[in-house]
Amino acid sequence: MAEKSELIQNKVIKDIVNQHLDIWALGYASSLLGWDMETYMPKEAINERSIVFGRLSVLQQRLLLSDKMRELVKKGEKEQNLNDYEAGIVRTLKRRIEKFEKLPPEFVEELEKVRAKSQVVWREARQKSDFNLFKPYLQKLFDLAKKATEYWGYEEHPYDALLDFFEEGLLTRDVEVMFSEIRPRLTDLLQKILNSPEYMETHPLEEAEYEIEKMRELNLEILKLFQFNFNRGRYDISAHPFTTGIGITDVRLTTRYGGKNFKESLLATIHEFGHATYDMQIDERLMATPVAEGVSLGVHESQSRFWENMIGRNKTFVEVNMELFRKYMPFLKDYTVDDVYKYFNLVKPELIRVEANEVTYNQHILIRFEIEKGVIEGKMQVDELPQIWNEKMQKYLKITPPNDALGVLQDIHWSMGSIGYFPTYSIGTILAVQFARKLEKDLGSLDDLIKAKKYKEIKDWLREKVHRWGSTYTPKDLVKRALGEPMNPQPFLEHMEKKYKELYNL
Amino acid sequence: MAEKSELIQNKVIKDIVNQHLDIWALGYASSLLGWDMETYMPKEAINERSIVFGRLSVLQQRLLLSDKMRELVKKGEKEQNLNDYEAGIVRTLKRRIEKFEKLPPEFVEELEKVRAKSQVVWREARQKSDFNLFKPYLQKLFDLAKKATEYWGYEEHPYDALLDFFEEGLLTRDVEVMFSEIRPRLTDLLQKILNSPEYMETHPLEEAEYEIEKMRELNLEILKLFQFNFNRGRYDISAHPFTTGIGITDVRLTTRYGGKNFKESLLATIHEFGHATYDMQIDERLMATPVAEGVSLGVHESQSRFWENMIGRNKTFVEVNMELFRKYMPFLKDYTVDDVYKYFNLVKPELIRVEANEVTYNQHILIRFEIEKGVIEGKMQVDELPQIWNEKMQKYLKITPPNDALGVLQDIHWSMGSIGYFPTYSIGTILAVQFARKLEKDLGSLDDLIKAKKYKEIKDWLREKVHRWGSTYTPKDLVKRALGEPMNPQPFLEHMEKKYKELYNL
Repeated sequence: MAEKSELIQNKVIKDIVNQHLDIWALGYASSLLGWDMETYMPKEAINERSIVFGRLSVLQQRLLLSDKMRELVKKGEKEQNLNDYEAGIVRTLKRRIEKFEKLPPEFVEELEKVRAKSQVVWREARQKSDFNLFKPYLQKLFDLAKKATEYWGYEEHPYDALLDFFEEGLLTRDVEVMFSEIRPRLTDLLQKILNSPEYMETHPLEEAEYEIEKMRELNLEILKLFQFNFNRGRYDISAHPFTTGIGITDVRLTTRYGGKNFKESLLATIHEFGHATYDMQIDERLMATPVAEGVSLGVHESQSRFWENMIGRNKTFVEVNMELFRKYMPFLKDYTVDDVYKYFNLVKPELIRVEANEVTYNQHILIRFEIEKGVIEGKMQVDELPQIWNEKMQKYLKITPPNDALGVLQDIHWSMGSIGYFPTYSIGTILAVQFARKLEKDLGSLDDLIKAKKYKEIKDWLREKVHRWGSTYTPKDLVKRALGEPMNPQPFLEHMEKKYKELYNL
Repeated sequence: MAEKSELIQNKVIKDIVNQHLDIWALGYASSLLGWDMETYMPKEAINERSIVFGRLSVLQQRLLLSDKMRELVKKGEKEQNLNDYEAGIVRTLKRRIEKFEKLPPEFVEELEKVRAKSQVVWREARQKSDFNLFKPYLQKLFDLAKKATEYWGYEEHPYDALLDFFEEGLLTRDVEVMFSEIRPRLTDLLQKILNSPEYMETHPLEEAEYEIEKMRELNLEILKLFQFNFNRGRYDISAHPFTTGIGITDVRLTTRYGGKNFKESLLATIHEFGHATYDMQIDERLMATPVAEGVSLGVHESQSRFWENMIGRNKTFVEVNMELFRKYMPFLKDYTVDDVYKYFNLVKPELIRVEANEVTYNQHILIRFEIEKGVIEGKMQVDELPQIWNEKMQKYLKITPPNDALGVLQDIHWSMGSIGYFPTYSIGTILAVQFARKLEKDLGSLDDLIKAKKYKEIKDWLREKVHRWGSTYTPKDLVKRALGEPMNPQPFLEHMEKKYKELYNL
């Protein structure tokens, strides 16, 4: 139990943790309610369930902003000689309290209303591919985001305030530096691939049909290979793959089965396994405390991308598991390791971000970042966005969406008011390579580790460097402690150029 | 949404319902957490989950006993011209508040500690069949129950206070009158059956093995026959069958599969369907209000017993579904309708309550009632209970347990501090027959309804008379409104004597 954790010795911090327990329990319950909604909830339960979500979320906020909680956190800030865990608890709660208390209740209420309505309208707009339907809502959402930047405040750039909400301490400047380094080299890499005689727009394995039960068994085999702890987790089906760390001892991932293109289900499972392993390997002594969760979206994504890109899309991984793949996907008897490896890493300019490959993925994010920043700065207008989107797609990805459903309307994020969220995906992709390089320095090459099935060693390393800390450190501090350096796109770019040079004979 | 319900017009009551919404949402969440714990929760999640249960329950109590809630309910009590729903809301909340506020916090804390420990010790004691292990805890639990009767107060008998906790308004006197009527006639009926040449101690179908998947399919067929609404409910597997009304639009029942003795799984499913239908047919306009739940354990059990005993164990039901049974239980090709009917209604003196048949079931309850009352009155001592138990078993059921695991230690209830709970099972069994008779007056014979598959008509009748009201009326009022008379064991006794006279040629 949290209040007995040996990691927390300071009396004030113990009081804070105890005072926070109800908030933590409400978060735990909401996570289960959310997981259930996507997996087993009967469909007509949705309205009643929505009332529950609303109440629990308001209750959580009320407890967080209670006089007692705020006073305790203020007291905690004045404490001397806190250990890292204790300091992390104060930092985490102070941050959460500030995010809420700086927003006036009328603003929060309006935001919630606009978000609720926007999601409904966005669905209809995307279905009809009619941007004009969604436009007034998107305008409103960007206006509200601008207002939020004023309430929250910022030092350099208003967009910083939005970034920080999703990734503590992330600055517009950081994202610009990152993209300025990767944009030209990835665009160049993509152009070379498109010009290569090896380029293929489609791969026959994309159309190969599988039995869903066999796909499920293969995914389970992979989870067992990675030693996923089923005594502390579950693996279910949902419309969109996701992972929920309900608690440290209850982490659930899901996948979906499209019936063909087996890499989608397999790599999504490996991706979610990365998220799940992070949530599961948080130090148990932090259970039920405010730091018992992943530190940020970007660092979380680095863990899923590490497993998906650095292991799942690795040639050795394909090689040593080829027989396993063939057992469950019998059509693979007609394909070689090289075929499957190339299929796993097929590069082509797709319209849809969630279907993108390693080479194009960050360009998709770049477009969203440039648009969000442009609108927040007042340099772009909402009604120009479909055109701007299409121009940027052509510029970075050499393809133009035939309609807005496949363009500016494709993502749910904006309709939920999540502006400033997208860059965390790129951060994760870049950090994943840095973690891989550092891990290889400590444990030897990933190829050798994969050959020897040393997944436990890989997980232990990630636990030690990243997972066990929960949100004790800020994302930037955690990265520096783990890697000895801050986020840096160079290893990612080198990895990409080397890998795809070989794959496409560039 | 509750706050917009047209059933609630009074301003003060609307405020009460809104103030209660957080408490309701916490109850909803706890129900899902409980369902999940018994079905899909990974096993090592139990400790973390327990912390969550504890916090949510304390939080619920704190909100219920808040000054605002108490003041609103007091204000509600003074309102004139409340409609029945509004009055029910005030009554329900007043009752819940009083149950909590009359118990001193130190008492509640001690009770919770003793309960938690007692359940662990009881499990061990039952496993080792060692009453002495459990004795000091049982003593403590009865001492605490006695204390509770003083805190809660009573008019006639201290045991009234315990009964009322589980069944609003139920008096020791009511239970005594009930048992004084059924005890001699059921004991006599059992003796006649034991003396009958038709008596069989075992039935070959008890040993017939089934395929679990086929059993599941048969149960699903029956749920479909009864038109269970899968868009508002689920059917899963758990170690012990149960039903949870998470909300009016999310009701989940479970069953288990022992691999043989198919009536167990089938009749348990029909029993749970009765509970589920009650929870599901509460008036939707009461959603998220304090009265959006079944009124009492006894009335809830009347609904499950109605479906289990009056439909599931009915000969016409066996007859018209014999082909369906044979489809999934192929061994039934060697058995007639009469065989299966007799198997469904096999009477023998069992040691274990949960395995009891219709004739012996209430005698099992009687023994528990007499013991609870005896200890609360101070006329029995805890260390005499194994002997008293065995004597009563011999007296009422003509059988003596070979050990305490199969005797006084068999039920979990006392270890949970649930003293005064058992009589509600008998109340349900008796009411089930009264509801059946009344329904037959309105709709024609159950045999004809079953033949015509008029399950919707049966459900509509039960909705109108019982379900839709939630806990608007007290259990006694609801019964009187629905039946035109109070609980009365005569129809039950007549039903039993007629049915078993035919079955055993008495």
